[in-house]
Amino acid sequence: MASFTFSRQLTIAWGDCDPAGIVFNPRFFEFFDTNAWMLFDAALGVAPQNLASRFGIIGIALVDARANFLKPAKFGDVVEITSRIAAFRRSSFDVEHRLTNGGELATEGFETRVWTGRDPNDPDKIMALPIPKDVIDKFG
Amino acid sequence: MASFTFSRQLTIAWGDCDPAGIVFNPRFFEFFDTNAWMLFDAALGVAPQNLASRFGIIGIALVDARANFLKPAKFGDVVEITSRIAAFRRSSFDVEHRLTNGGELATEGFETRVWTGRDPNDPDKIMALPIPKDVIDKFG
Amino acid sequence: MASFTFSRQLTIAWGDCDPAGIVFNPRFFEFFDTNAWMLFDAALGVAPQNLASRFGIIGIALVDARANFLKPAKFGDVVEITSRIAAFRRSSFDVEHRLTNGGELATEGFETRVWTGRDPNDPDKIMALPIPKDVIDKFG
Amino acid sequence: MASFTFSRQLTIAWGDCDPAGIVFNPRFFEFFDTNAWMLFDAALGVAPQNLASRFGIIGIALVDARANFLKPAKFGDVVEITSRIAAFRRSSFDVEHRLTNGGELATEGFETRVWTGRDPNDPDKIMALPIPKDVIDKFG
Repeated sequence: MASFTFSRQLTIAWGDCDPAGIVFNPRFFEFFDTNAWMLFDAALGVAPQNLASRFGIIGIALVDARANFLKPAKFGDVVEITSRIAAFRRSSFDVEHRLTNGGELATEGFETRVWTGRDPNDPDKIMALPIPKDVIDKFG
Repeated sequence: MASFTFSRQLTIAWGDCDPAGIVFNPRFFEFFDTNAWMLFDAALGVAPQNLASRFGIIGIALVDARANFLKPAKFGDVVEITSRIAAFRRSSFDVEHRLTNGGELATEGFETRVWTGRDPNDPDKIMALPIPKDVIDKFG
Repeated sequence: MASFTFSRQLTIAWGDCDPAGIVFNPRFFEFFDTNAWMLFDAALGVAPQNLASRFGIIGIALVDARANFLKPAKFGDVVEITSRIAAFRRSSFDVEHRLTNGGELATEGFETRVWTGRDPNDPDKIMALPIPKDVIDKFG
Repeated sequence: MASFTFSRQLTIAWGDCDPAGIVFNPRFFEFFDTNAWMLFDAALGVAPQNLASRFGIIGIALVDARANFLKPAKFGDVVEITSRIAAFRRSSFDVEHRLTNGGELATEGFETRVWTGRDPNDPDKIMALPIPKDVIDKFG
């Protein structure tokens, strides 16, 4: 597991919550998506909107997302989301997100993403590209 | 006012609602945005994803949006949204949306949109373009 | 696996999509959440907003959600989402969602939910309750 | 116009943006809704989730929302949203939001909200209640 981690605090908004008064589950996947971008920004020093052009890719396409909902988060709760790369493979990687609420683990998120670019032989096709070694190294 | 109208029914989803158990206001603007696209589809016979290419524009950019919230809509309510063009001008137009719930007017929406394309003298610039007469005619 | 299935068609809206022009992943979890409610409605004949009061529960709390993104869905695509119960246990159950686009499997969703109510010995506490046999039977 | 203002910075997320690469308009209404809560928190020292119980109300119901979209905001843009009360009336008030992007006004928002509680003669009915003088005074 890469040792570099990124954390941010977030206050749960009224609009994040459903009629049960707790965060509606798709919002957690939004929180995690944003954290994945911020993790790369923190590790590489490249703002999310520049990541694709900086590395000649299209993006870091999500192919699998999962979350466990252990404890709820309510309107006004200040939660903390800590993210890290759990594994790098040739052209894909796993991101792990831990959301704590009042110090207790409330939601875990798991994403698998692919370093995605254009096929050099056919720019109309997209394909998985090898993740540059210097990118991986930045995550320790 | 153009006489052509488009209506659709919609069942309010759990995720549309906030902790008060009623539709969270930004969702109404989403409903209205979708209705605007569907209104054009119904009037012109051009699917939303083909509208820009069919007319050589970039889109129908929103410049002003407003809604009045008269009565709430709750999880499971079946509402009806009826939309029409309230006014066409040279390159902008107003869309009016009426959302009824159980036959009673619950929310009114008003949008001003611009027929937006590229400047023929400078393709890097976008500009308001005149709305084609045959587009306007289709709305009666 | 329970044999009862529910399917609905859905047209991808502008607001469902991200700057890559494809459905933003949390929206799939919204689509699946709505389908879970509709599946129960179709099997039991109980509207989503009446499910809790009809069965004396608080809800069908989501404890785990997962999705695989195999092919993208774009603005204007008409997709079909078919849902079924993959397994019933004493007080929890798994829901499986298959989203097809142009006839091809595009996204799979998996949810684990809990039949959740109040502790009869302490109404301030919530707990997993046994799923009634007649509920399970309705899913074949 | 009340002199008290509240400002926050916000980085536009991937999921805030639509296929045109700019913030999807309903998201601005979400940003403004959150700012309205934060404005009250900043002025009164009462966290949003405690506002209703602290003042014996149900909430600050939105009855009218409007926004003008002057310039777009894109993924990664750091915008600033400044909010103030434009007018207090007996039981309703107007909130004004100004969103700047790179120092330029990009979007203006206008909300009318009602200080809403239960009818003392019939707790099943909700009604507009007079806004307490000490609340108004806190906004200068």
